[in-house]
Amino acid sequence: MQPAAKTSCQKRLGRIEGQVRGVARMVAEDRYCIDVLTQLSAIRAALRRVEDEVLRDHVGHCVEHAIRSGDAEEQRRKVAELMEVFARAER
Amino acid sequence: MQPAAKTSCQKRLGRIEGQVRGVARMVAEDRYCIDVLTQLSAIRAALRRVEDEVLRDHVGHCVEHAIRSGDAEEQRRKVAELMEVFARAER
Amino acid sequence: MQPAAKTSCQKRLGRIEGQVRGVARMVAEDRYCIDVLTQLSAIRAALRRVEDEVLRDHVGHCVEHAIRSGDAEEQRRKVAELMEVFARAER
Amino acid sequence: MQPAAKTSCQKRLGRIEGQVRGVARMVAEDRYCIDVLTQLSAIRAALRRVEDEVLRDHVGHCVEHAIRSGDAEEQRRKVAELMEVFARAER
Repeated sequence: MQPAAKTSCQKRLGRIEGQVRGVARMVAEDRYCIDVLTQLSAIRAALRRVEDEVLRDHVGHCVEHAIRSGDAEEQRRKVAELMEVFARAER
Repeated sequence: MQPAAKTSCQKRLGRIEGQVRGVARMVAEDRYCIDVLTQLSAIRAALRRVEDEVLRDHVGHCVEHAIRSGDAEEQRRKVAELMEVFARAER
Repeated sequence: MQPAAKTSCQKRLGRIEGQVRGVARMVAEDRYCIDVLTQLSAIRAALRRVEDEVLRDHVGHCVEHAIRSGDAEEQRRKVAELMEVFARAER
Repeated sequence: MQPAAKTSCQKRLGRIEGQVRGVARMVAEDRYCIDVLTQLSAIRAALRRVEDEVLRDHVGHCVEHAIRSGDAEEQRRKVAELMEVFARAER
């Protein structure tokens, strides 16, 4: 990944790790289920944002590199990989 | 939460915390974006399973308690809370 | 369903039927795939809005009726039905 | 679209149109909300399958054509279009 995206994703993941620990503590302290669910759903949204950032960086650099290379086989591979990512994301 | 669901969720969350740390390491080590995305999407699926477990426990105990209480106001509150959880989950 | 929600859903479904016919015509006329996809995704969003309206009406009337009845078995059935709807919607 | 995919999508859309009409009839006949919701969610899943088929055809032909052309600008446009489709699909 490019330096800026890399730093940003690492910061986000550090925060997410803390949020996961926080929600484990909420469960331990018998906090109300609905509050636990709200927090879990916020963590999932934060992960989705990391995925969006990694994907943007991937398209801007790895896919762009394949386009510049003029290597059709490599381009097909990149498109197939993107299709798999999306098939998974829809679920 | 009930003891069994509580233990199970705490174990899951402990594993998820480790997975988040692992993916931060993957980013630090410049691992291939697509592998990072695959891992992030697996973590999101694992979080979704925790949410399912908390929700099942909530319906089996908190909502069931409201039903047994015969307190209509409390029942309405429970249903409204469920609707909010679902509105968020759909996004 | 209540008269207002019923009328509104019927109007929405009439429009959706027209949109489905329109997209079949786009396919027949070899319109660009991306435009077809955009239209299909708009139809899916419109269906989701009908589902939201039916669900709101259901909670406001059928579920509310079960709450007022004081019949715990009926209330459990309503909650179980909602959980199934949500399990399906998440997918 | 390629002839086989085109025929298949048109058949699917014809069936979906009938399903939409059927659910409008269910609403008119005051059928139980949960049954209406089940049917609406089945229609949405059917639409998603049409989208998958259009997308596969698009990647196999339009995107493949851009790869073979060796035209980098056209390839960038195809990738950008795919990203927009996915951004919409996630919602």
